[in-house]
Amino acid sequence: MTKKVVILGSTGSIGTQTLDVIKHNQDIEVVGLTANSRIDLLEEQIKQFRPKIVCVMHEDKARVLKDRLDSQSIDVEVVCGVKGLSTVATIEEVDIVVTAVVGMIGLIPTIEAIKVGKTIALANKETLVTAGELVMHLAKEKNVSILPVDSEHSAIFQCLQGNTHQSIDKLILTASGGPFRTFSKDELKKVTVEQALKHPNWVMGSKITIDSATLMNKGLEVIEAKHLFDVDPSQIDVVVHKESIIHSMVAYQDGSTIAQLGMPDMRHPIAYALYYPERRVSEYIKKLDLVAIGSLSFEAPRKDDFPCLQLAYDALEIGGTMTAVLNAANEEVVASFLNKQISFMQIPEIIHTVMDKHICINRPSLEQILECDRWAREYSREQVAKCY
Amino acid sequence: MTKKVVILGSTGSIGTQTLDVIKHNQDIEVVGLTANSRIDLLEEQIKQFRPKIVCVMHEDKARVLKDRLDSQSIDVEVVCGVKGLSTVATIEEVDIVVTAVVGMIGLIPTIEAIKVGKTIALANKETLVTAGELVMHLAKEKNVSILPVDSEHSAIFQCLQGNTHQSIDKLILTASGGPFRTFSKDELKKVTVEQALKHPNWVMGSKITIDSATLMNKGLEVIEAKHLFDVDPSQIDVVVHKESIIHSMVAYQDGSTIAQLGMPDMRHPIAYALYYPERRVSEYIKKLDLVAIGSLSFEAPRKDDFPCLQLAYDALEIGGTMTAVLNAANEEVVASFLNKQISFMQIPEIIHTVMDKHICINRPSLEQILECDRWAREYSREQVAKCY
Repeated sequence: MTKKVVILGSTGSIGTQTLDVIKHNQDIEVVGLTANSRIDLLEEQIKQFRPKIVCVMHEDKARVLKDRLDSQSIDVEVVCGVKGLSTVATIEEVDIVVTAVVGMIGLIPTIEAIKVGKTIALANKETLVTAGELVMHLAKEKNVSILPVDSEHSAIFQCLQGNTHQSIDKLILTASGGPFRTFSKDELKKVTVEQALKHPNWVMGSKITIDSATLMNKGLEVIEAKHLFDVDPSQIDVVVHKESIIHSMVAYQDGSTIAQLGMPDMRHPIAYALYYPERRVSEYIKKLDLVAIGSLSFEAPRKDDFPCLQLAYDALEIGGTMTAVLNAANEEVVASFLNKQISFMQIPEIIHTVMDKHICINRPSLEQILECDRWAREYSREQVAKCY
Repeated sequence: MTKKVVILGSTGSIGTQTLDVIKHNQDIEVVGLTANSRIDLLEEQIKQFRPKIVCVMHEDKARVLKDRLDSQSIDVEVVCGVKGLSTVATIEEVDIVVTAVVGMIGLIPTIEAIKVGKTIALANKETLVTAGELVMHLAKEKNVSILPVDSEHSAIFQCLQGNTHQSIDKLILTASGGPFRTFSKDELKKVTVEQALKHPNWVMGSKITIDSATLMNKGLEVIEAKHLFDVDPSQIDVVVHKESIIHSMVAYQDGSTIAQLGMPDMRHPIAYALYYPERRVSEYIKKLDLVAIGSLSFEAPRKDDFPCLQLAYDALEIGGTMTAVLNAANEEVVASFLNKQISFMQIPEIIHTVMDKHICINRPSLEQILECDRWAREYSREQVAKCY
């Protein structure tokens, strides 16, 4: 049976790669696509994959696209805004919703999709970082599978196959260490935006690339892993592995460790989520050649020099709305860093200040999470304003 | 329910470590033990584990042991010889037979145990190397599980959990490379017995240590892997990995590779086989610390300088009785090398000569296999005699 899929955020990095996987396999029907503003690319995707419905966040751009499609007699429903996103996420005939939108905007349509029983191929970090408890609880209630698309979580998910939950000792997330892995404390203070945007192993968007340089990316992944795999934060370790070949590992209680390896290529975890539990032949992904690679190295993360990782562990330990605050503050300060308003080392400083100020709410509702998110953003911007 | 186990070869390296695992868990009943000649150790094991029956290969030693046990009023049945080995292997109440005897002697009791439906924890290399087709066919017919105890095959078995057979691309056996991994061709010609007996990572018997130095050990494992996991020889790769931390891997058709890692400790694969599919907590096994290890390296095996590996692939490709001949010739020439009758590089030379002379029988019976084994040993000894 052909699977039917919608992709929320189809013009982004994960979205385009998801469509590439589907193109290579040709047995998945794309029913819906959504874009923030890149309507030229969305138009191309519509012509190639012929979805029934698309959503463009910006209403004006949605109208422009609709006119263009009409003039070519292409029959596609065009909706817009957050409401449109949820409409696409909940179309009745769809089996899998790929949530590849970046930011808090991904949270509500993901929840709506879970409510109507869709399998979620999760690439939106904010869903579990800000509302992990709520989302996983809902998924359990609705008997919905949340399949990770992130390479690290996909690796762990693969390493867990055929094993029981109770036999887990630790989840070991690998981290490339980012472009500043070997920088001294002093060098870190002088890091420029241009330097931070050069990631050694993965080609990604600019926000996630900065998160990778601060190790916040790994911290957010620790939070996600806790929710996805239902383990204690103390059971999640981070190891710096600069080659990004081992994508993560599971250490079992019997002393055995299972690792998932591959060339860094996001199309692999995407394909695993789309076809799970099947492993599809993927000749288009470069095969791993360990002899050519020669060696794999491992270091402890420099938690003192990259405080974002510890901030994430702290937020996870505190729980409640604190992880949403961590995430919101991080998004704001990273944007400020990209705008050259603050320095690289001010990123963790300001996040820390915001977390200190926050009065945490346990077992928050979605509204409370969104409210704390708004508060943290505002308070972060105030802190940024003090810096210049 | 307590599992009931017999250990064929309980005084050897694998046998004693199997008892160590059982001692740490205390929920397996040891029903039978067998030894070749080390009756002092066997006596100790009897006192500790209280089996119902033991076998000593040498009749005289069996009698000595029986007298000693009688004088201490220890009630154990003592049998002897190959027949006694099969008696122990087929006791009605037993669930698992651990076949840890070294050499062709392990073949017949293993077959007898399969015939009466015992689960086999297989540590005897010769079983699959010499009679792989016959044994696996019988195991299938009797619906018997053959659980690998070798660290490499256990690793592959673990990496296959939760995956389908058809999704396998390659099995990747790791090899330590042995003590002569970096030796030049000239240095290899001058290798002494003393040098060859020093294995960098594992403490093992002398025959298997030499096999590890020649890479024949890996060749035999390739043959075993083919039978255990039912793949084509072209689907089995060998990678030299000198740290012996990754015990082997499975590359899947989707581009993903799953690896099993751990400290080199045979008690781990033994425990996995004994408790499969459960992973028992094993605090007595040192945990893996990749940061402390620092790096893992990979090289292509030097097939030209270590011809035993290619000889094994050749024998496997030819099939039939050729792998039994390879094994028998190897056993003889390794013994001759240990007796300082031939040089290190004459090991593959003589095996090659014996294989060249052999007229292969396809789909052989057990009798034909044993006959070819006898012939190969005799012919090997003749070749060795020519050398001095």
